[in-house]
Amino acid sequence: MKKTPAEDATPLAEALAAVGDRWTLMVVEALLEGPARFNDLQEAIAGIAPNILTERLRRLEREGLAVAQPYSERPPRYVYELTAAGAELAGALQLLAGWGARHGEAEPVRHEACGSPLEARWYCPTCDESVEDPAEAGVHFA
Amino acid sequence: MKKTPAEDATPLAEALAAVGDRWTLMVVEALLEGPARFNDLQEAIAGIAPNILTERLRRLEREGLAVAQPYSERPPRYVYELTAAGAELAGALQLLAGWGARHGEAEPVRHEACGSPLEARWYCPTCDESVEDPAEAGVHFA
Repeated sequence: MKKTPAEDATPLAEALAAVGDRWTLMVVEALLEGPARFNDLQEAIAGIAPNILTERLRRLEREGLAVAQPYSERPPRYVYELTAAGAELAGALQLLAGWGARHGEAEPVRHEACGSPLEARWYCPTCDESVEDPAEAGVHFA
Repeated sequence: MKKTPAEDATPLAEALAAVGDRWTLMVVEALLEGPARFNDLQEAIAGIAPNILTERLRRLEREGLAVAQPYSERPPRYVYELTAAGAELAGALQLLAGWGARHGEAEPVRHEACGSPLEARWYCPTCDESVEDPAEAGVHFA
């Protein structure tokens, strides 16, 4: 990810400078399913215009979040796939999708084992525990 | 949250229809600190123009994510605060901030108890367990 303009950028501002628009996040969501060609992506993302898709793929490449691998020379054609940094957006997109499901018309995300709606939490891999209170985890906004 | 235009909207598309732009998410982040007046918000969000802030606050009100309470009649002045639905964006914004910290210049989000960088996970309140594999939770993209 490139340096953001402001020297005092917050972590959220840095993230949003790279992926802070609707179509960019929807392209990342589609690529989380696996590598895809331009036409696959256009089909997967309802309502995206070709010029917007082209622009957002270039943006993801510039930010180091996706790479384009050629699969045909004539005509030149590429398959797009997320880098490790791009794939790490999965958690945030899950949370946004879960929120959209709770507050929109779509189904909530449920635990397969018991059927309860899931919540998103911070998790510490060292302590193997989930952290309920963000402040407890040293997370403070603004 | 209002109904999104597409009948077949995915949960993520529904979420992004409500909050899928950089400034909207930064206003939500600032309001997660607590109720704030217009001037407080302008100060808290580096680089936001007054007309953009006005427009984003109206958008959050329209979507039912924030409410404006009057605190002065002459001149008319309001204090803005998140609704429960708006406050539930905290988890997603934490994850985006965590991602920004890992891939940008800012510090990662760490566990206060042990100092390890935190991960985002789905958590089942009924089973009291965190769900490591999103597919196990029945979460599938696209």
